[in-house]
Amino acid sequence: MHTVTCIAPVNIALIKYWGKRNEELILPINDSISMTLNANEMCAKTTISSWETFKANRMWLNGEEVTFEENARLMRCLDGVRRLAVANGALKVPLNWKVHIASRNNFPTAAGLASSAAGYACLVYTLARLYGIPINEELTAVARQGSGSACRSLYGGFVRWHSGVLDDGSDSVAKQVVSPDHWPNMHILILVVNDARKKTPSTKGMQRAVTTSALIQHRAKVVVPRRTEELTEAIQLRDFNSFAEITMKDSNQFHAIALDTYPPCVYMNDVSHSIVNFVHAYNEAVGSLQAAYTFDAGPNACLYVLEENVPQLLAAIQLAFPNDLVPSVEYLRGIQVPNFGSQNEKLPSKLSDADFLEKRSKNVLKYIIHTKIGNGPSQLSDDNSLLVDGLPVSSL
Amino acid sequence: MHTVTCIAPVNIALIKYWGKRNEELILPINDSISMTLNANEMCAKTTISSWETFKANRMWLNGEEVTFEENARLMRCLDGVRRLAVANGALKVPLNWKVHIASRNNFPTAAGLASSAAGYACLVYTLARLYGIPINEELTAVARQGSGSACRSLYGGFVRWHSGVLDDGSDSVAKQVVSPDHWPNMHILILVVNDARKKTPSTKGMQRAVTTSALIQHRAKVVVPRRTEELTEAIQLRDFNSFAEITMKDSNQFHAIALDTYPPCVYMNDVSHSIVNFVHAYNEAVGSLQAAYTFDAGPNACLYVLEENVPQLLAAIQLAFPNDLVPSVEYLRGIQVPNFGSQNEKLPSKLSDADFLEKRSKNVLKYIIHTKIGNGPSQLSDDNSLLVDGLPVSSL
Repeated sequence: MHTVTCIAPVNIALIKYWGKRNEELILPINDSISMTLNANEMCAKTTISSWETFKANRMWLNGEEVTFEENARLMRCLDGVRRLAVANGALKVPLNWKVHIASRNNFPTAAGLASSAAGYACLVYTLARLYGIPINEELTAVARQGSGSACRSLYGGFVRWHSGVLDDGSDSVAKQVVSPDHWPNMHILILVVNDARKKTPSTKGMQRAVTTSALIQHRAKVVVPRRTEELTEAIQLRDFNSFAEITMKDSNQFHAIALDTYPPCVYMNDVSHSIVNFVHAYNEAVGSLQAAYTFDAGPNACLYVLEENVPQLLAAIQLAFPNDLVPSVEYLRGIQVPNFGSQNEKLPSKLSDADFLEKRSKNVLKYIIHTKIGNGPSQLSDDNSLLVDGLPVSSL
Repeated sequence: MHTVTCIAPVNIALIKYWGKRNEELILPINDSISMTLNANEMCAKTTISSWETFKANRMWLNGEEVTFEENARLMRCLDGVRRLAVANGALKVPLNWKVHIASRNNFPTAAGLASSAAGYACLVYTLARLYGIPINEELTAVARQGSGSACRSLYGGFVRWHSGVLDDGSDSVAKQVVSPDHWPNMHILILVVNDARKKTPSTKGMQRAVTTSALIQHRAKVVVPRRTEELTEAIQLRDFNSFAEITMKDSNQFHAIALDTYPPCVYMNDVSHSIVNFVHAYNEAVGSLQAAYTFDAGPNACLYVLEENVPQLLAAIQLAFPNDLVPSVEYLRGIQVPNFGSQNEKLPSKLSDADFLEKRSKNVLKYIIHTKIGNGPSQLSDDNSLLVDGLPVSSL
């Protein structure tokens, strides 16, 4: 039996992907750019075994068996990697052997953070390792057919997904903009917000936006091409100020397009908007753009901030969004920050000035995940396997 | 002493005015269309006296004296009407006599409903009556310089404010689309929402949108021209379905533009969006568009609905947004609806079906104003005067 276990990271888009030009092949109407997050704090983990005696392709997601052959996206990924294996002459594992797949996310799906990108990236990467084929742009095009943004999770650092122009999607691939070493002090705070509303799923929201928004094509054709160039340059120059402004503007525009959809899609809530106001007020108070927000199709905020500015930003967050769970590792998860929540924390007076802070209720944030820029997927040693004799281990 | 007292109505835009091409002359970047509301429920009331012996121009707003000569918008309206009086050879009142002005709104400003449109329309209309000049397009251009949307409150029914193309703004005038008699059963429910957030004032929000939104020019140049034609046709045909769809889309797009502004302007809150979801679910349940929402620069919803559909819509609102004030005239203000809030109210089962209703907290609405399409400003008899011997009467 051949068995491979890998992990793949989450990525958070700075220039947002919203809207497809081809639903089946998952071809977007515009380029997008993302940052890959460190897999220490959040990742998908997948084990794939293949053996002559397996009767059927099977898959277990977070311990529960899911349908396989009926899942078109899953099958497209499996077939896509096998096609590349044939083209590469890779014969490490016979292609007619069935596969057993177990996959888990190490972060709560309740966080509302896109788990499908990491999940499909991990699936495709692990299949590539199993069959012994290289990790290249062609492989990102396979991952893209599982979940669009999955293609960006195959690389570390900053990654650009090129929309491409070809009908077959072969030029709709992800490419690394810079490696994580280029901007190693780029950190991120994910503010997880309580939310109970029903929201339109992304796939449906995108479809509806493309057919009903009177603004989305102008965004895709005119605004995004300019922004992707500007953001790429800001990243290359490590220009946090430009990086922050473009990131915030594009997050806002994505939600504007969602709102211009009919019926409208609303993903941010009052707490989300309160975080937006906080970030602008904070930047104003410190006199430069030190924090940048971005929101995906949910209410949680992702704040980009340089490592050296994390303690002060966290202290200000605690002032603006007081929480009874502070200090605790349940509240501040991931990379720990010395003295977080201590009474002795010094904030510049302009930051502790009450005028800068709106009156907010307590405990509107569930918890915060502190992480940073990270690498692409990687293979783990066999003792990390999620499968034993082709069946999932009962617990992690 | 010459004294004139008039009232002027509120208007609610269907195609939104957002963004100026000239700040001083208040020239908009796109046409807008509004419906004038019946003055019985909401209006501004203004008395102007002019007399040889008055030492200075003075003004009292809701009983409080306000500065006059320093208020550029006020002076532009006064000078504008006087210029028209000269051009018309109107000599009813000497133009060099000072004026005393008292103005009141008969609706709570706390409702967050645009009071400046009715206020400036009333000012300009009352001045025109005082000096004896006709109510025409030239006068709407004067009102526009007080508050842009005031020009639309000089007519009843549906009114279109043409952006115009001339630099001096002389072609930026309001014209009636149809009189109130054309669609007399057009009613409106204003759902007043509790809100405590600080919001960007409209004037500032518009300025910022014009300078920072990457989508606003596309809206003004491409989307709105098409929509104004479609909405005009829908109004002329009394086609409520098209009317409703265009109205909801334009409200959403206005808020999308506000969100695409940097920093973003957010006027709707979670309750506003909950009302949006309710309206779409309601229309879905009844099988046609029977209600249309529009939101101005605040969280309150204006629901357009035909008179015959008001009782059922109100009953559904009560189901979705239960309120302890029901039934009471404090809660349902304006036009009364028989049996509102009674237990015997019959709703089709698809409307009383709990699935159709999100779980919402109680008492999220402050109150509801029920009104309908109405006439333009009108002059009242002298016993309605807000001034006695040129000074404001102490109470109303």
